[in-house]
Amino acid sequence: MDGGRVTVKDKGTVVPSIPTIAPAGAFDEADRDAVYRAIYTRRDVRSQFRPEPISDEVLNRLLMAAHHAPSVGFMQPWNFIVIRSDGVKSQVRAAFDVANNEAAEMFSGEERVLYPHLKLQGISEAPVNLCITCDRTRGGPVVLGRTHNRDMDIYSSVCAVQNLWLAARAEGIGVGWVSIFRDVDIRAILGLPDHVVPVAYLCLGHVTELYEEPELQASGWRQRLPLEQLLFRDRWGEAM
Amino acid sequence: MDGGRVTVKDKGTVVPSIPTIAPAGAFDEADRDAVYRAIYTRRDVRSQFRPEPISDEVLNRLLMAAHHAPSVGFMQPWNFIVIRSDGVKSQVRAAFDVANNEAAEMFSGEERVLYPHLKLQGISEAPVNLCITCDRTRGGPVVLGRTHNRDMDIYSSVCAVQNLWLAARAEGIGVGWVSIFRDVDIRAILGLPDHVVPVAYLCLGHVTELYEEPELQASGWRQRLPLEQLLFRDRWGEAM
Repeated sequence: MDGGRVTVKDKGTVVPSIPTIAPAGAFDEADRDAVYRAIYTRRDVRSQFRPEPISDEVLNRLLMAAHHAPSVGFMQPWNFIVIRSDGVKSQVRAAFDVANNEAAEMFSGEERVLYPHLKLQGISEAPVNLCITCDRTRGGPVVLGRTHNRDMDIYSSVCAVQNLWLAARAEGIGVGWVSIFRDVDIRAILGLPDHVVPVAYLCLGHVTELYEEPELQASGWRQRLPLEQLLFRDRWGEAM
Repeated sequence: MDGGRVTVKDKGTVVPSIPTIAPAGAFDEADRDAVYRAIYTRRDVRSQFRPEPISDEVLNRLLMAAHHAPSVGFMQPWNFIVIRSDGVKSQVRAAFDVANNEAAEMFSGEERVLYPHLKLQGISEAPVNLCITCDRTRGGPVVLGRTHNRDMDIYSSVCAVQNLWLAARAEGIGVGWVSIFRDVDIRAILGLPDHVVPVAYLCLGHVTELYEEPELQASGWRQRLPLEQLLFRDRWGEAM
């Protein structure tokens, strides 16, 4: 990879440079397939975490991948809270349990029966938990590209999540996104200021095996939609 | 890539299967580096689009990559509006101009001087425009994982954007995300129902060269932050 130059810049001494354009065509087939392999074999992991720690070297590569996500107006609104403390994990796990019990009551029919049997988090088992946030004040009151859609900063932080998730797949690190929390609880546990949004709470750990399809599909909860049903031509509702 | 099985499922005949776990460790170094190369050399493209059309085969691979993004409760809330019509592009371009003129008035100081000189879209030049949406009603009123954060569906559609963006880099396709629109305008042009959110309006086309760093950094608009400044340990504000 040609990340060397990028790393130097990330050390902080940045001199505004003359824009340089470089050749950038399609990857060769092997490299292209590697990218697709990360995309197609990425899973939302809840149960396959190995107990071995994640090295600082690997974790840093994942965080640097996240940090190179696109961001509106190059705002880089994200922070990364790396959680290894068992005490913090226990609090987060307790907050999940409260919310998950609330959630279980919201379903009906077959889903209500199945829901309590689904494992939806691996907070305690994952050696690293990671909260990716969005600081809505970064870059000041007017940010390029965010003038008309104020949520573009949140979208940028989500792009960072997905960059990290795909890099993690390539590193043999499983990632699970836990979203079942009361907002007020996760804010209190992590001490977030009001202007910071907890976009994603992720569980990370080495994995040696993964489901061959999304776990919710494997469990019969929901099936993948045919892509053809989701495509329109030029306007909503126009068949391709 | 092992996408064959996935493709079969995407044809619509899905039988709930016995969950199968398969070995899934780290990629070898070459494949890992290919993933990082996509992440580090991805750019937000405005000016480098080539006029050659994107083949259906390549476009379908990009859309399938997007469709394999993570989604809350496997909700798959996205639709993909593929725009090749010059008429629709012209309307979108006009909507951009209206919003961009409004945006230009919001800046002050050096930014106000520089802003009008930045090229922020390639709507007309890009052979394909693509709107990725989020249908907030898909999957019914109660969706697993969305019980406490109602915006998880939007986040899922953003993950689809980033999957597509990285796949596009590997295919030699440049992508630019245009976010400077009045919401009402883009909704009217594309005929979106009220329950559908236009998450991302993207411009796509073949590229043979790209900037070596983010264009906004190259132009002196803003510099990359040092990653170290963005990291916390266990709680907001605690140094790593």
